[in-house]
Amino acid sequence: MSERNIRVEPVTGDAVEDQEVEIVERKGLGHPDSICDGIAEHVSQALANAYLETVGKVLHFNTDETQLVAGNSAPAYGGGDVVDPIYILVVGRATKYYACEETGEEYIIPAESIALRAAREYLAENFEDLDLETDVIVDVKLGEGSGDLQNVFGEDGAEVPMANDTSFGVGHAPLSETEQIVYNTERRLVEEFDGDYLGTDIKVMGKREGDQIDVTVAAAMVDEHLTDIDAYQAAVAEVEAFVADLATSYTDREVEVYVNTADNIEKEAVYLTTTGTSAEQGDDGSVGRGNRANGLITPNRSMSMEATSGKNPVNHIGKIYNLLSTRIAAAVYDEVDGVREVRIRLLSQIGQPIDNPHVADASLVTEDGVEVGDVEAEVAAIVDRELADVTSVTEDVIDGKLPTF
Amino acid sequence: MSERNIRVEPVTGDAVEDQEVEIVERKGLGHPDSICDGIAEHVSQALANAYLETVGKVLHFNTDETQLVAGNSAPAYGGGDVVDPIYILVVGRATKYYACEETGEEYIIPAESIALRAAREYLAENFEDLDLETDVIVDVKLGEGSGDLQNVFGEDGAEVPMANDTSFGVGHAPLSETEQIVYNTERRLVEEFDGDYLGTDIKVMGKREGDQIDVTVAAAMVDEHLTDIDAYQAAVAEVEAFVADLATSYTDREVEVYVNTADNIEKEAVYLTTTGTSAEQGDDGSVGRGNRANGLITPNRSMSMEATSGKNPVNHIGKIYNLLSTRIAAAVYDEVDGVREVRIRLLSQIGQPIDNPHVADASLVTEDGVEVGDVEAEVAAIVDRELADVTSVTEDVIDGKLPTF
Amino acid sequence: MSERNIRVEPVTGDAVEDQEVEIVERKGLGHPDSICDGIAEHVSQALANAYLETVGKVLHFNTDETQLVAGNSAPAYGGGDVVDPIYILVVGRATKYYACEETGEEYIIPAESIALRAAREYLAENFEDLDLETDVIVDVKLGEGSGDLQNVFGEDGAEVPMANDTSFGVGHAPLSETEQIVYNTERRLVEEFDGDYLGTDIKVMGKREGDQIDVTVAAAMVDEHLTDIDAYQAAVAEVEAFVADLATSYTDREVEVYVNTADNIEKEAVYLTTTGTSAEQGDDGSVGRGNRANGLITPNRSMSMEATSGKNPVNHIGKIYNLLSTRIAAAVYDEVDGVREVRIRLLSQIGQPIDNPHVADASLVTEDGVEVGDVEAEVAAIVDRELADVTSVTEDVIDGKLPTF
Amino acid sequence: MSERNIRVEPVTGDAVEDQEVEIVERKGLGHPDSICDGIAEHVSQALANAYLETVGKVLHFNTDETQLVAGNSAPAYGGGDVVDPIYILVVGRATKYYACEETGEEYIIPAESIALRAAREYLAENFEDLDLETDVIVDVKLGEGSGDLQNVFGEDGAEVPMANDTSFGVGHAPLSETEQIVYNTERRLVEEFDGDYLGTDIKVMGKREGDQIDVTVAAAMVDEHLTDIDAYQAAVAEVEAFVADLATSYTDREVEVYVNTADNIEKEAVYLTTTGTSAEQGDDGSVGRGNRANGLITPNRSMSMEATSGKNPVNHIGKIYNLLSTRIAAAVYDEVDGVREVRIRLLSQIGQPIDNPHVADASLVTEDGVEVGDVEAEVAAIVDRELADVTSVTEDVIDGKLPTF
Repeated sequence: MSERNIRVEPVTGDAVEDQEVEIVERKGLGHPDSICDGIAEHVSQALANAYLETVGKVLHFNTDETQLVAGNSAPAYGGGDVVDPIYILVVGRATKYYACEETGEEYIIPAESIALRAAREYLAENFEDLDLETDVIVDVKLGEGSGDLQNVFGEDGAEVPMANDTSFGVGHAPLSETEQIVYNTERRLVEEFDGDYLGTDIKVMGKREGDQIDVTVAAAMVDEHLTDIDAYQAAVAEVEAFVADLATSYTDREVEVYVNTADNIEKEAVYLTTTGTSAEQGDDGSVGRGNRANGLITPNRSMSMEATSGKNPVNHIGKIYNLLSTRIAAAVYDEVDGVREVRIRLLSQIGQPIDNPHVADASLVTEDGVEVGDVEAEVAAIVDRELADVTSVTEDVIDGKLPTF
Repeated sequence: MSERNIRVEPVTGDAVEDQEVEIVERKGLGHPDSICDGIAEHVSQALANAYLETVGKVLHFNTDETQLVAGNSAPAYGGGDVVDPIYILVVGRATKYYACEETGEEYIIPAESIALRAAREYLAENFEDLDLETDVIVDVKLGEGSGDLQNVFGEDGAEVPMANDTSFGVGHAPLSETEQIVYNTERRLVEEFDGDYLGTDIKVMGKREGDQIDVTVAAAMVDEHLTDIDAYQAAVAEVEAFVADLATSYTDREVEVYVNTADNIEKEAVYLTTTGTSAEQGDDGSVGRGNRANGLITPNRSMSMEATSGKNPVNHIGKIYNLLSTRIAAAVYDEVDGVREVRIRLLSQIGQPIDNPHVADASLVTEDGVEVGDVEAEVAAIVDRELADVTSVTEDVIDGKLPTF
Repeated sequence: MSERNIRVEPVTGDAVEDQEVEIVERKGLGHPDSICDGIAEHVSQALANAYLETVGKVLHFNTDETQLVAGNSAPAYGGGDVVDPIYILVVGRATKYYACEETGEEYIIPAESIALRAAREYLAENFEDLDLETDVIVDVKLGEGSGDLQNVFGEDGAEVPMANDTSFGVGHAPLSETEQIVYNTERRLVEEFDGDYLGTDIKVMGKREGDQIDVTVAAAMVDEHLTDIDAYQAAVAEVEAFVADLATSYTDREVEVYVNTADNIEKEAVYLTTTGTSAEQGDDGSVGRGNRANGLITPNRSMSMEATSGKNPVNHIGKIYNLLSTRIAAAVYDEVDGVREVRIRLLSQIGQPIDNPHVADASLVTEDGVEVGDVEAEVAAIVDRELADVTSVTEDVIDGKLPTF
Repeated sequence: MSERNIRVEPVTGDAVEDQEVEIVERKGLGHPDSICDGIAEHVSQALANAYLETVGKVLHFNTDETQLVAGNSAPAYGGGDVVDPIYILVVGRATKYYACEETGEEYIIPAESIALRAAREYLAENFEDLDLETDVIVDVKLGEGSGDLQNVFGEDGAEVPMANDTSFGVGHAPLSETEQIVYNTERRLVEEFDGDYLGTDIKVMGKREGDQIDVTVAAAMVDEHLTDIDAYQAAVAEVEAFVADLATSYTDREVEVYVNTADNIEKEAVYLTTTGTSAEQGDDGSVGRGNRANGLITPNRSMSMEATSGKNPVNHIGKIYNLLSTRIAAAVYDEVDGVREVRIRLLSQIGQPIDNPHVADASLVTEDGVEVGDVEAEVAAIVDRELADVTSVTEDVIDGKLPTF
């Protein structure tokens, strides 16, 4: 066992599943805030990989500030137009010139060009109804950061960096039923209706009161695939049925599903779009304003304000600890019998290696008949093991294996 | 008593003051994220007032998306330069043309010009070391929103609007000792050192473990007021002493104060700036990424992800409920004897008047010897009274009386 | 014969070919100013065609203001990088909403999206070494113009619009020997070296003193096709030989060719680029700053300051008269025996049909033995004929058949 | 006498004053193109002075590319509003970091901040009806140029730089009657009506046919100073009378004056503005698209395409030769008896000192009874003297004494 400061304690309060009211939200892939999160993270991956390939280590950067300004559109059954393109400004810091102290070699890293390509690539891959030649302008402003914050992550990936800040990460497991429904509703809708009338901007709100779960879905429909208001209504009904069915896989509680409740069918004021996202008209977006690192917004649980997407995965302690605590929580829940719910909090200590947090704190709700003391050692060992493996979080982020929103 | 759905319950868990570890953060007025919050909210006030004056009611707008791109600077003792200006993009939606259905009168509201003036005014009033003619570029992109979302707040202010979304607000009272120290450290430093060497970008992090409180301050120093590194060190020491002294007004616990711990005095790598904010070099910012509506980031408490600043104060339910729940919590704590801690949560119900939330939920920690049942009626009456007065939140926001970050 | 005010006169002065010193310049397709001209004109064509297709007539627009901000690049033999992308801002006015007074039908014309597509299309088609996903950001700001200036060019194309301004166009024929060499050097190099080491940014300056012609070429080389400085020098020599040979087709005078004279081979400071244009590093550009409507800059001849590219081809009298006068001059020279040189000037008259200029003025240098009076009637008839056919200029511009720079 | 290659010849053709048709135009100070010229030149002066003060010599820069995107306004008698601000993008190249090879000293020159201040200062000083806090957004993009083009103009100002390009400048004297009227109409109107109802966007077109001169003025009126359409009409009449009177100082020919002929009084569609410039609505602008270096557009005279404003006054040969040739022409006309008209052309020679042009060419129209041979020596001496003093052009430009548009 290491010297790490790991605490295992009972939760102070009820398991989320036992609380009377629970609220959960997920902003889908095509929500303006999520578009920004996705671009920021994709740009971050591209830069990290470019640094590794060129210089052999990840240099200083942060690209967690993409701003989206909504366009203007004229959707129409059968296919409308984006009138004024969406404007996306990719903002951040990146090292563009690097002189290696040891070898004297000088490197130019075309950071803005890399960011531009990555942002456009991400849009092309994820939003098939968005025409990159007409519907969106991608602009980039990447300044230089402070020179002192360079060279932090070696090629071998083995070096553990020092914490650059006092920061905090939090993770939970397992997802509650409501959380599972909300999360998977968006994920499954995207998969299932790929290429069809359903856009990518799907916002899911789950509200549980006691044993009654309401799932409210706001889903952008794509005009090209719908001939008229009847087709639109049929599509809404189909989505509603799909979600109602899907929910039964996750709960035995009563579930009500509502789709596009703000529609006014009589006035034909419905949620019809040309590109599948409300970014085409009226909804701006930016990074870190939507889902937390586990893909959800969960006011019933403690959350970090940190924008995880776009941050440097090597030295940004807030990003790493949010992802790592979520990973640890999952491991504890999966591996330890008798745990009903676990929350992991990691608090960094400036100037110390990031695998050695100031405190790592596991709060448990145990199954009936199980005491925290019964599983404490097991839990602590998992926390310890995962902390020791902290750099694998960085690696997985760089490889795009770890979602951040 | 009204028909409102108000619940009063014991907190599930410990009072924050009793928890073992507590973390609190405040990003000061001049932090890049706070600059964006402040501009967004000031623009929002200016627009609301312009609508009231011109049209007699607040029309649809949202200006909660300001993006700041850091500049580039060359600070120097005695006075340095901003080399590349900070770029601030004010983003949002606003109604620019309005035809009154009843009177047929048409109005043009110069929304972008109003926003530009408000943003620059805010900067001029709050950041005296920032030269608006050289150090910052303010750009504006305000699109039109959806036409359906217009005319919502009458001149009389009496009409209660309908909730436009399922949203959630949360407020707490009282501030814990650590919270008080963190909040007031920034507030008092700004007042005390106004016009002197201390910049406006003061980030305060409080960490309490048991009865030991660490206050870590990162404070931008202004080069013009400092002659050399010795003067800088003296200034840091002065700030340290000031904060240490200030903390004693709020706690009897042990307090350690750290100021600008990232400095390297030998290498003269210190936190010296020309404008008093890190926005001049290397730190981007945007709205809703920093302080919550009560001015703090408090991972120990439940928080809303909602960006309160810049939102329309009439119809944006997230903004209103965050501010209102904070106000209710304060009222409950102030007026009801025997309450140690109160958390108010308000959950909206789409299509219902906002003074009638789906649920209003008060969780209490009571003093020893007091039961929740003893004060339940009193608490419920306050919640009911404040909900009935919900439009005063809107009025106070429009009048600039209610801080949002 | 019409009532048109047509004058035919002898030139006051020498034929250009007889003047002692002659200076001629052509900025090639990939020169930053020409890139802007090309985009502006291509956007103009796209908008004109969109209006015709949607509304049945060309509505008000002007897109003659594209601004290019140079990027930053790191060229390298074998292939370098654009570090900071080129930024191109397409500026202008366009009608986005149109309500037909007769039919009451309403149209939305997605002008900005059309402009964005046209600009990117133009870049893709003409600059193969420019990677649109990494090397260039295309931004668009198209405001609305004045509503009164709408509906000017019917579907049938037959209506002759009124002149909206007092303006002036001028054209010349034939090209002098030096002009032919300069013009064709750029044109032939682009064709001949397509896909090879020669970029599109080829600036040709011709200077004739008496019977000595110096042709100075500044030609951007593309790094990807060149392995080293020797290959670069061989390429320069090849271009030099090609141009020297080409010049002999146009003149019997002595010709000296200079290519990339600013190179410093020893310091390896040569004109190497990654994209084939100096826009990648250090050279900004905008519309109307380079070639006149005949593709040349000719200080020996009278020139119009009018930026022809991007202007509305229906109602912008400066654009139409520059193109028409050039066309008339060519017709006169081709069709009338005994004419050595002709200059056509057209001066508009506000409020009159554009086929009826205030004055159309043909200045001639005739062959030895030919008097102006001998050909006057023939020349006037051609001028009259071409004026009557003025709308064909508009049609040809819309169809992209008439180069404007 | 020097070795300079100076030629003095008779003009080939008529004096402009004797030509049958003459066209002259001046775009006033507040025309969108002139606004850009003025900003570009003012920024250029500010940078040149900053380099001199900081480094002791002018470093490489060029700021000749300002782009103006028109705003949107709602003028109204008594005072209207700018609805969407004018957007001005200052574009160019500037040296931001400089390491002196001799002393090893390093300099940071805050070029973008200097440009921002200069641009705003210029607007504030010249356009009193433009509110800098609401009506205009000034943005700046100054890239770095090529490092090789640095350190060219010493503190002493005595060193004569080498020509960096084959370029060409042309100047004329005296102004014809029509030119004098056009030029002074704008200049005197600005002075006379300063602070009153007349805006700064005054476009004057002069057309002379034989002895009939038409002066057409398009003058933006400022709404704040006018109560209604009658006041507007009275203002137009007053301007008309003023110009008619003014014209008599310059000519005995017949003069007709037309002011705001595009107005439609019945429909109240008149040239009313809030800021005094058409940039507030519908008219974009950029550098080098309007007046030549002598303040006029004169198709009857040979003109250079070169954008003079904003260019580096030390090493940009096109700028220097346009200003110098104008100065020489004036000196010849003033000092030499018997000269009716003079045109000076200067052609540079790459790599040679700029006081030693490839050819300096003076074309004269002499008074009756005077032969070119009679004044040749005198003219050549003046040309020689002024060439020797070429650096005074640079000095005067830097000091803001020499208008460029």
